[in-house]
Amino acid sequence: MAFGWIEEQARARRRAGLVRALRPRAADCPLLDLASNDYLGLARHPEVIEGAASAARRWGGGATGSRLVTGTTEAHARLERELAEFCGFDAALVFSSGYAANLAALSALAPHGSLIVSDAGNHASLIDGCRLARGTIQVVAHADPEAVHKALHTHRGPAVMVTDAVFSVDGDAAPLARLAAVCRESGAGMVVDDAHGLGVLGPGGRGAAHAAGLAGAPDAVVTVTLSKALGSQGGAVLGPAPVIDHLVNTARTFIFDTGLAPAATGAALAALRVLRREPERAARARTVAATLHARLAAEGHEAVRPDAAVVSVRAPSPQQAVAWAADCRAAGVAVGCFRPPSVPDGVSRLRLTARADLTDEQIEHAVRVIGEACPVTRRTASTR
Amino acid sequence: MAFGWIEEQARARRRAGLVRALRPRAADCPLLDLASNDYLGLARHPEVIEGAASAARRWGGGATGSRLVTGTTEAHARLERELAEFCGFDAALVFSSGYAANLAALSALAPHGSLIVSDAGNHASLIDGCRLARGTIQVVAHADPEAVHKALHTHRGPAVMVTDAVFSVDGDAAPLARLAAVCRESGAGMVVDDAHGLGVLGPGGRGAAHAAGLAGAPDAVVTVTLSKALGSQGGAVLGPAPVIDHLVNTARTFIFDTGLAPAATGAALAALRVLRREPERAARARTVAATLHARLAAEGHEAVRPDAAVVSVRAPSPQQAVAWAADCRAAGVAVGCFRPPSVPDGVSRLRLTARADLTDEQIEHAVRVIGEACPVTRRTASTR
Repeated sequence: MAFGWIEEQARARRRAGLVRALRPRAADCPLLDLASNDYLGLARHPEVIEGAASAARRWGGGATGSRLVTGTTEAHARLERELAEFCGFDAALVFSSGYAANLAALSALAPHGSLIVSDAGNHASLIDGCRLARGTIQVVAHADPEAVHKALHTHRGPAVMVTDAVFSVDGDAAPLARLAAVCRESGAGMVVDDAHGLGVLGPGGRGAAHAAGLAGAPDAVVTVTLSKALGSQGGAVLGPAPVIDHLVNTARTFIFDTGLAPAATGAALAALRVLRREPERAARARTVAATLHARLAAEGHEAVRPDAAVVSVRAPSPQQAVAWAADCRAAGVAVGCFRPPSVPDGVSRLRLTARADLTDEQIEHAVRVIGEACPVTRRTASTR
Repeated sequence: MAFGWIEEQARARRRAGLVRALRPRAADCPLLDLASNDYLGLARHPEVIEGAASAARRWGGGATGSRLVTGTTEAHARLERELAEFCGFDAALVFSSGYAANLAALSALAPHGSLIVSDAGNHASLIDGCRLARGTIQVVAHADPEAVHKALHTHRGPAVMVTDAVFSVDGDAAPLARLAAVCRESGAGMVVDDAHGLGVLGPGGRGAAHAAGLAGAPDAVVTVTLSKALGSQGGAVLGPAPVIDHLVNTARTFIFDTGLAPAATGAALAALRVLRREPERAARARTVAATLHARLAAEGHEAVRPDAAVVSVRAPSPQQAVAWAADCRAAGVAVGCFRPPSVPDGVSRLRLTARADLTDEQIEHAVRVIGEACPVTRRTASTR
């Protein structure tokens, strides 16, 4: 049997309690959502929905081709212009996903002979981008500017440092300003994935890179996603105009992919305009996360203090994490459950996401449910 | 300057006439479209547009999370069920792009120690999938079952053969039945990218893999796109249920990507239902392609006889291809212009796509415009 070998892996997963299954949700799902990445509560905002619907009516169901053939509409160009302007960059290029944006940025900016210095906690899409790039990869300790400094000093020729701005699993922020300093000392470029920073961090939600002073810098390229705070789908690369032009000409996941669907460009653009008009949403998402963390930590949970809108609670085992998440769900609260191989350190967690539109009552309810579903068995102090 | 090295590449592109630039199109663009992959003319079909708009209204602008967390809606599940059933497979898994589907299929089905035998003409997404996979890659001559046979015989252990069903650049079809025979002789699995076959080839547009008898086979995995004949965005992997389950558990571009936007699932599902109801659209796309080819060949153009809906016309140089395409455009006809590095053999081409909704008058008009814009200077016979 050609694919017979996969059955052995399936058995091993079952034994280890690591089986994953899809759970389709209904449109009127009554669960309180602390699992999605809809940080600003915009995915169901009427203007975002109308942005999607009206773009579909105007341009059709799809972009109909790759961006260089027929897949660039005026809606794509407008979104790119407004996104670059909002985040403070020269230019932007929109992709069908943040994953594709990361593959593009890394494979186009780390050619043969170059060095990529990559944080050990980076997202899978950055890791795959490194693997598709022709440069040499050096993985360095998590959030460690000194390790980056050492790695860059081993190399002559083009180099690029790549890091998440906010790490997806624990929600901790990279020390961007210090990383920028060591990169600049070596003349290395920076690729920063601000997927979890856009809409949440920086002035008015302009992102962690903006907050660190990297916006518009000639040596900084930032990737973002349209599918988290902006409630849509897709990703983008932001950077100096010559870098964006280089991507248009060389990035395979740009050249050989169908353009982002018009509805997704319309939804993202509408969300961006809501955020610009209501910058307090960004601050509210951070406040909700801080409150969630403080309340859980006060009850003795091993929760990481959030730098953005992700609050991570460690579980003693994958089985326990699954049981906790199921109990929360049974009590009406949806939480994320991250297990190997989705966690870089092998530690299973509940992953709670703050949404700007959660009320104080909803936060209290969630804390109560989580407290009952996830008994504190080990330490009493929060980390960090 | 960190990214200073890209300016040198930009200069080289300018010298070689290989600069690419985006050309945003207006919603009311008056050009006759022979450039998009909207093979069945469904991207602007009222039911497809309504499918997108109503899904956005029902589910919001985005899927809000990865498929295993909050990103699977009942709309995703329904699309997967109907797509699998239509194409004749056990199960289907939808991705945010066909590119992501190919990365997933290959990286999950070619583990360490396995062999991947890959056609030399395969699409960039298949090539990148091979590079992300942990297996050993052997690239074989284009559309050559004997070469596949030889390559498979060099290896013991799991092996997979990967090919486009219809090659994007020249529009030629792979010899799927003969490839299946040599794969089965060696116990190798098959990954077939039917991006350009779905909706065009096979009974009622069920695809080239279906036409070759591979639908539902335990050793065949087929990838398709929702962004060509189905006029939407996204991709899917079709195959035996244990293979799809394996992808859910291991494929990185599935696990670590936000789910496809609801609007795209709605548009694709609506298009699939139109196709099921109006199977004659598939035959019409093939007829339009055959007519285009016959008329151009009769005028002496070096056009490849189409196996699906793509008609490729060779140009003597990249500069010439660009000039031809610009002249067609000036005369009101949009055609694709493929130049290095988007062509595996370095030969620049015009790429014409047939749409099922082109009228005979539009075909005649297109042939007249192309005939005037692209003077026949070399051979008089068509190839193949």
